[in-house]
Amino acid sequence: MWKLHHFALCPFSRKTRLALSEKGVAYDLERVYPWDATDEFYRKNPAARVPVLEDEAKRLVLVDSQAICEYFEETEDRTPLILGNALQRAEIRRLVALFDENFFADVTHPLLHEKMKKRLVLRATPDSGALRNAMKLAHEHLEYIDWLVGNRRWLAGAQMSLADFAAAAQISVADYLGGIDWAGHEEAHGWYRVMKSRPSFRPLLQEKMEGIPPPRHYADVNS
Amino acid sequence: MWKLHHFALCPFSRKTRLALSEKGVAYDLERVYPWDATDEFYRKNPAARVPVLEDEAKRLVLVDSQAICEYFEETEDRTPLILGNALQRAEIRRLVALFDENFFADVTHPLLHEKMKKRLVLRATPDSGALRNAMKLAHEHLEYIDWLVGNRRWLAGAQMSLADFAAAAQISVADYLGGIDWAGHEEAHGWYRVMKSRPSFRPLLQEKMEGIPPPRHYADVNS
Repeated sequence: MWKLHHFALCPFSRKTRLALSEKGVAYDLERVYPWDATDEFYRKNPAARVPVLEDEAKRLVLVDSQAICEYFEETEDRTPLILGNALQRAEIRRLVALFDENFFADVTHPLLHEKMKKRLVLRATPDSGALRNAMKLAHEHLEYIDWLVGNRRWLAGAQMSLADFAAAAQISVADYLGGIDWAGHEEAHGWYRVMKSRPSFRPLLQEKMEGIPPPRHYADVNS
Repeated sequence: MWKLHHFALCPFSRKTRLALSEKGVAYDLERVYPWDATDEFYRKNPAARVPVLEDEAKRLVLVDSQAICEYFEETEDRTPLILGNALQRAEIRRLVALFDENFFADVTHPLLHEKMKKRLVLRATPDSGALRNAMKLAHEHLEYIDWLVGNRRWLAGAQMSLADFAAAAQISVADYLGGIDWAGHEEAHGWYRVMKSRPSFRPLLQEKMEGIPPPRHYADVNS
């Protein structure tokens, strides 16, 4: 049985959980606090990051959300998420990288730093300028999602793909931390409501980070 | 004919150039300054980053170094770089991500910021504390490379792979900027000398960034 070392508000853990669930891969969860990783965890992943997926009986350890997703894409036929021809797959991977790297650096990481790490670890006051900037950049990303879903059925094309799950994973963490304002982003909002209502999303929306309650609308699939 | 929009000291452009050359894919180069990207470039890649690979005649645009490398892995049989079974491929992708993300964040990005961007764009003095920290973290990464090449023939296993090129691309930029001290890292140094002596590496070592001369040993494949 697979065990996923994860963290509730890690967008890369969330992306991996969504992909595994969509593909029907069963796994247990083990929570890791990234600021308090043990030597044992560090031995599994010298980068000291979640997600790490482990099968202790088979002595297998898979590290890095994209490496994990590509692994199951190659070994599980069910529900392809990096699908289509080579060009379509390149477009899916471009968008996954856009959300994993740019959205994370622009929006999710500053929100996690200001609203979670400063509260739980550093015991410091959030920087309101940094929060305003993250929310401004979130608007630019949501505008791009408006454009994508206005021109295509799903983010990367005619079919739902890993790009949708990578984007929704980032947005769900930003939304938990109060960083998403849907005003003026009807298309993106409609797409996100569809993502939220998938069975794979439900366990994520139920999960709480102690000391940081999500806003009321967060887990409501209708809002 | 492919045209690669790149930047001389961008490690992701370098990784892509190495992979394309190893696979025998011909391309022209077009230099983009990341701090001065045009609207036209932004339309090709909303993330406003190099590398971008374009075939104007075929109206194809590929964005993101890993998406480009995966594309040619799927479409060109020559010189597989993400090779082996699914587990070996997961190990290659884990290490690519380790160098693309961790080494870049720990070492290459701070060196580029302090030694290139501050000199050419911000006209500011480098922060010696940030430089010391980047070089300290470089030592930790080189130690891990020592361990990898002491236990395997190449970084990810018995065969040369994209992991070697991703790592060498990052190191080559850090080395250009004077951030690599090989003392105490004989294994890693031996591996890097082999990487440097490959024909695919030669054009990178010849290239100069105006205003920032590399140290004398940089392009010498024997040192």
